Amino acid sequence: MLKAKGNLLVGQSGGPSAVINSSLCGIIEEAIKKEEIGEIIGMKNGIQGLLKEDLIDLRRQNPDVIKGLKRTPTMALGSCRYKLKEQEYDDILKIIAKYNIRYFLYIGGNDSMHTTHEIGRLAKEKGYELYVIGVPKTIDNDLLHNDHTPGYGSAARYNAIMATEICMDTISLKYIEVVKVVETMGRNSGWVTAATALAGKYSPHLIYIPEIPFNAEKFLNDVKTVYDYQGYVVIAACEGLKNPNGSFVAAFQSKMNIDPFGNPELGGLGQYLVDLIVQNLGLKTRLDKPGTMQRSSGSAISKVDADEAYMVGAKAVNLAISYITDKTVTLVRTSNSPYSCETGLANLEDVAIETRKMPPEFIKKDQNNITKAFIEYAAPLIGCPIHDYVELADIKPKL
Amino acid sequence: MLKAKGNLLVGQSGGPSAVINSSLCGIIEEAIKKEEIGEIIGMKNGIQGLLKEDLIDLRRQNPDVIKGLKRTPTMALGSCRYKLKEQEYDDILKIIAKYNIRYFLYIGGNDSMHTTHEIGRLAKEKGYELYVIGVPKTIDNDLLHNDHTPGYGSAARYNAIMATEICMDTISLKYIEVVKVVETMGRNSGWVTAATALAGKYSPHLIYIPEIPFNAEKFLNDVKTVYDYQGYVVIAACEGLKNPNGSFVAAFQSKMNIDPFGNPELGGLGQYLVDLIVQNLGLKTRLDKPGTMQRSSGSAISKVDADEAYMVGAKAVNLAISYITDKTVTLVRTSNSPYSCETGLANLEDVAIETRKMPPEFIKKDQNNITKAFIEYAAPLIGCPIHDYVELADIKPKL
Repeated sequence: MLKAKGNLLVGQSGGPSAVINSSLCGIIEEAIKKEEIGEIIGMKNGIQGLLKEDLIDLRRQNPDVIKGLKRTPTMALGSCRYKLKEQEYDDILKIIAKYNIRYFLYIGGNDSMHTTHEIGRLAKEKGYELYVIGVPKTIDNDLLHNDHTPGYGSAARYNAIMATEICMDTISLKYIEVVKVVETMGRNSGWVTAATALAGKYSPHLIYIPEIPFNAEKFLNDVKTVYDYQGYVVIAACEGLKNPNGSFVAAFQSKMNIDPFGNPELGGLGQYLVDLIVQNLGLKTRLDKPGTMQRSSGSAISKVDADEAYMVGAKAVNLAISYITDKTVTLVRTSNSPYSCETGLANLEDVAIETRKMPPEFIKKDQNNITKAFIEYAAPLIGCPIHDYVELADIKPKL
Repeated sequence: MLKAKGNLLVGQSGGPSAVINSSLCGIIEEAIKKEEIGEIIGMKNGIQGLLKEDLIDLRRQNPDVIKGLKRTPTMALGSCRYKLKEQEYDDILKIIAKYNIRYFLYIGGNDSMHTTHEIGRLAKEKGYELYVIGVPKTIDNDLLHNDHTPGYGSAARYNAIMATEICMDTISLKYIEVVKVVETMGRNSGWVTAATALAGKYSPHLIYIPEIPFNAEKFLNDVKTVYDYQGYVVIAACEGLKNPNGSFVAAFQSKMNIDPFGNPELGGLGQYLVDLIVQNLGLKTRLDKPGTMQRSSGSAISKVDADEAYMVGAKAVNLAISYITDKTVTLVRTSNSPYSCETGLANLEDVAIETRKMPPEFIKKDQNNITKAFIEYAAPLIGCPIHDYVELADIKPKL
């Protein structure tokens, strides 16, 4: 067992979130307290920066800057989405040894968990003492063995606020632009899209998620039914909607838009639905596509989410110095009302690669909306109430 | 001159803004104080609701609700974009007389000013004593005789925040998604798009506005130049970009997407630019299109803007009860540093129809960005600082 101090290395990977820096903050503030930890080193742009020894001293930063990470969205260390080649794993281990790294923490989603596992495995193979811990992060909420993932609460909060305001906008204009389509994020799962249902009475009337194969005829019928009933329609549709054969309804075909893990860039789903509505129903329709705002909006940070992101970061430090390795911190809900959540532990391999979809009990039977069970699950994650807007009472004037 | 009390009628028209309800709040709270004013009546969905006598009692609303209007985006009374037919002007005057309306206030943009002028003209022709006052509102900032328009400051604040976070997102991912295109609102003028330049060091590298005819070759050259220099590019492009012949670069062609004033629905500009970049430069490019969030986001309300919107509403009441008619309140900047602003007065006819474009001194010579003069003009309008995010210092770790 390691007696002397070792250094800690931390990186961020995959897509940004509003609270991934909160996890980094938790790691740095916790590591500073620990005698076992010498230098605290950040990789710039994840393992891609590590390969180039593009590193940064995190122990000697201004403490106010470290504290400010908790309210700063996106990735202070920068990201990568890089698949290591066989030879590069060796290079990385050499750099790790060169900097006397004994604790390796990687904040990311399932692909990052895989990378972390592989680095740990190689270190073990070579007899280099290294404790590798994964720190969960993804707005997609799709990591196995987690009740939810850090980053999701804030993305959900953003989408709840966005849905509220987009719906209020549509109601204002119900004599002018009668249909609004909002294209939301999500490659394989509907979690982020479903969060629009947290807007209460301003929730979209129709919500489409990739768990349900898309059927254009049913979609048009749904839109017409809502329109005939109340004269306007708000639709939230996930960019990752799939045809019954499993292909994306809208994806860029060009090769340069496929990432190293084989995921194609999505785009154009919203415009496709707008065209479908205009051509078939003749209704004036507008597209909103908030895009990367969903993952990177600082004004929509959920305090619950930021606190939990901090907690998983701090926990990872404590695991690593307790000689635990090849694990990821997880989030475990211990009570729903009042809401409480603790950290748990899972094997990196069990969280890597596979993703978690929305379970059937969260999807309405008519497959165009979300159930109350989902609302109960997701509502605590977005923190304080999303607005205190008012509405005029419909009092008739005196003649 | 009118001795007895008359009733006041108020409506909202055109596109929503984050502070049009603040103007309504100013009108109601001021009108309640005035002995000259009896009932305070709201048209639901503007003149379109008025034609149906779809009216609402504003005097008997809960005062907390009235106060809450100041922080509630979009249109509490609902909107319309309706061009009155000849006969309908007569109908409207009959309804106005039926409800003993003597003060007619209409909150809107240039089309609404035209409608207000016409109603005032007809009343005069028929010898019906009516004081009509326009209350300016438009995120487009394109009303003549105004230093700026209520609604613009909040839309500008939204776009400054959005540009900041989208740029931070892009920097995080500079090894992955190297170009981001943000499609922003604006039919004929670049004011809303230009506001992205208020994001300081996180401003877009390239900004395209309708005042400058679009040239695809120059655009691609601009993008390549920025990319070659720093490896990533953020582009803000106005939905209303025009070809050298004056046609829109991207507009829906279908008839149902043209409003009664002949304005076509815009859409697809951002995707067009993304395709242009991917096909010609082979760079991984993503589109964000915040759409109606720009005009309807409550979280981005600028306090300066909300206060000024309130002020123009309250002023309109005072003008009307002073027997002034056929005028619109305007905003007049009296000092830039420290910023101060007062109300002014203009003829409705002079503000109707025509719009105000960005002057040449606000546009950089290379026509792909905004000048410091614009920043100085617009910065006071967005209120308090847009964020307190931090950045890590680039300290090299000890070996």
